[in-house]
Amino acid sequence: MDESYELEVNSAAMPLRAQIRSATEWGALRGLETFSQLVVSASTGRFTVKSAKIKDSPRFPHRGFMIDTSRHFITVPVLKATLDAMSYNKLNVFHWHVTDNEYFPYESAKFPSLSQQGAANSASVYRRADILDLINYASLRGIRVIPEFGTPAHMNSWGKGKPEVLTQCQIADKLVNVASGLTYQFLNDFFQEVKTTFPDKYLHFGGDEVNPTCWMENDVVSQFMEDNNLGDYEKLEEYYYQKLTALALNKSRSFIFWEDPVGEDKNGLKLDPAAIIQVWKPMADPVQWKPNMARIANQGYRMLLSSPWYISHYPFPSNSVLQQYYDVEPLSFTSSADLKNLVTGGEAAVWTENIDSTNITSIAWPATARRAERRWSPEWIVNWNTRKERFQEQRCRLRLRGINVGSISGSFDNTCVC
Amino acid sequence: MDESYELEVNSAAMPLRAQIRSATEWGALRGLETFSQLVVSASTGRFTVKSAKIKDSPRFPHRGFMIDTSRHFITVPVLKATLDAMSYNKLNVFHWHVTDNEYFPYESAKFPSLSQQGAANSASVYRRADILDLINYASLRGIRVIPEFGTPAHMNSWGKGKPEVLTQCQIADKLVNVASGLTYQFLNDFFQEVKTTFPDKYLHFGGDEVNPTCWMENDVVSQFMEDNNLGDYEKLEEYYYQKLTALALNKSRSFIFWEDPVGEDKNGLKLDPAAIIQVWKPMADPVQWKPNMARIANQGYRMLLSSPWYISHYPFPSNSVLQQYYDVEPLSFTSSADLKNLVTGGEAAVWTENIDSTNITSIAWPATARRAERRWSPEWIVNWNTRKERFQEQRCRLRLRGINVGSISGSFDNTCVC
Repeated sequence: MDESYELEVNSAAMPLRAQIRSATEWGALRGLETFSQLVVSASTGRFTVKSAKIKDSPRFPHRGFMIDTSRHFITVPVLKATLDAMSYNKLNVFHWHVTDNEYFPYESAKFPSLSQQGAANSASVYRRADILDLINYASLRGIRVIPEFGTPAHMNSWGKGKPEVLTQCQIADKLVNVASGLTYQFLNDFFQEVKTTFPDKYLHFGGDEVNPTCWMENDVVSQFMEDNNLGDYEKLEEYYYQKLTALALNKSRSFIFWEDPVGEDKNGLKLDPAAIIQVWKPMADPVQWKPNMARIANQGYRMLLSSPWYISHYPFPSNSVLQQYYDVEPLSFTSSADLKNLVTGGEAAVWTENIDSTNITSIAWPATARRAERRWSPEWIVNWNTRKERFQEQRCRLRLRGINVGSISGSFDNTCVC
Repeated sequence: MDESYELEVNSAAMPLRAQIRSATEWGALRGLETFSQLVVSASTGRFTVKSAKIKDSPRFPHRGFMIDTSRHFITVPVLKATLDAMSYNKLNVFHWHVTDNEYFPYESAKFPSLSQQGAANSASVYRRADILDLINYASLRGIRVIPEFGTPAHMNSWGKGKPEVLTQCQIADKLVNVASGLTYQFLNDFFQEVKTTFPDKYLHFGGDEVNPTCWMENDVVSQFMEDNNLGDYEKLEEYYYQKLTALALNKSRSFIFWEDPVGEDKNGLKLDPAAIIQVWKPMADPVQWKPNMARIANQGYRMLLSSPWYISHYPFPSNSVLQQYYDVEPLSFTSSADLKNLVTGGEAAVWTENIDSTNITSIAWPATARRAERRWSPEWIVNWNTRKERFQEQRCRLRLRGINVGSISGSFDNTCVC
């Protein structure tokens, strides 16, 4: 996705002269967005356009925004408002965390029982028409949609409609039924369908928080490990990821995982070397993710940063905490320049334990705007003292466009009349 | 305000028979609200009415909800939605924290410069017509409106339009110009006007966080203290409150103060014995307010509890913290039954450092509904285990009525389709 563009506006010319040059439609979209930001209200109550000569391109190619739609259903109109807000902030990847333990809101044509049994209710389901509509809406705004169907953990909601997909065990955190051939047949069919719905090259497979206790409790799994010469649960997990990525998907898709499969507690689990690793530990921490990034870079994986950008966790940070988050520099971990090149970007993430359609927009923005700046703009654009003015202006712009952006933490500036 | 009522519904009768008996219109309003809660959706997709025989009255006469409109302006439509939500939860006092250091959004006919200079902008002003409209809207819902114009501290915004009202000093936290006769003339005129706008018997005068440094810096104040035989700053503060309450207001109004004038650090400052003291320390604390309540009860003042009900401070509490707040029992401080009778109720409070019209409704509710229950219902109605079901039901009801109630913390129950 080449998003670079050049924009030249001469507002002194009569009539006003503005030109965008870009190699792709994506670049043209970003240029138009910038142009819209040159339109400012004049003191006369009318609008005026600033002159400018801009040569611009993003610092990172992957500037994502993640929403969890399992813990709470987010309505399609609210997701569209989110896509609007993303485009206004030049974000280009909507990472859709579709399913999790709580609910299964995705309607599968092949396996309708998944949402019939697993969704919160019949109104809290994304129909195929909704999804295609959203993907198209995103595409028109220069946004790719990457779905996440997390596995082998965080799958309890799958078990409501398809109990055989889960390993039988007594603990609450179930795991995929790794020992059954039917599981792989099901996953093959399911993800084939997902592929026909989601055109993006990437699929997110989750892979986080795999507690093997459920597998430990199950004799069939133990036998399966013995039969397949899998000496421990890490080997079993690795086996599963290999099968998963080898399914019909392999040739045409690439994969993203949360960092857990290559985490510090692992002894060398190998993922597809082309996989992208999303760094999230410690969650919502402005600093401690750095050793993690350095370690995963050493393993040669490409990376996305999310740890300091869990915006659902501290909706009202104190000013000093806010500054810590604001100051996050994604390449500030200790590594070589070559390995730092493995960072393809980052994602702000909204987990919906406490959030639903009623408050996601006011909580997610303007926090996400700050994270968006860090991923588009050059490293040197980081100015704590001027940020309020810039984000107030951006907030005002979004509100005038109908996005219910929440107040800027600790700011009493009411200058935006909207 | 007698809010008691009796409600009898016989849904087996044809036609349905329902009767409300009450001594006042307030009681009738509360009975109608309860009746509306007996209307539930039937499994057929239609609505049905439950039979009931109810004799009901509130545990506390003052069940308030406070909004700070100085740090951020809250629009009139959002205030109306707040009044709606209050009535759906049988709250009966809207405590309007109109002004503070930040902005002065109240339009005074006699002193138009106050809002002209002190409001955030010309759109962030409550005109007299807006205010009368809100008071009428509240009244139709059985809600009294008590305005707070805090003094002698938290008045910086007054100084923008009327600099002479503030003591000249170098520190940021200005105080009222206590030594000038013009100040009292101004306050007299200002509050006379406030009285013509706000009909309620009570006025809230603030009185919180008076740091005397500003007075200490000013020679005229020092001379004034000497001339009036005021030996210390507490005496000066007491003098000020006496003058304030003796203004034309005295005969027709009663007063509410935050607890600070009778705080632990005071040596015996005396307020009007009829004043009501609003307990807020420590702020947003579920337990430590109790010694405070006991101490103030011993001084014989009537009291309102707010300390544990600062709902703007922890929008997403953990489950254990949530339970601590849920379990707050307003009379659980150590005192005699007689002195406990001095508690007239309590108020949930929304401070708007981080909140404005975009997010106040989703943050304030359903948190306030929980606090509302504790103030209306008998002491024994406290059940942590069933609360989710009850508040989910109430949230659903409010959402169906158009109130953008936020999600219930930590609840993944999506059963309300609205």
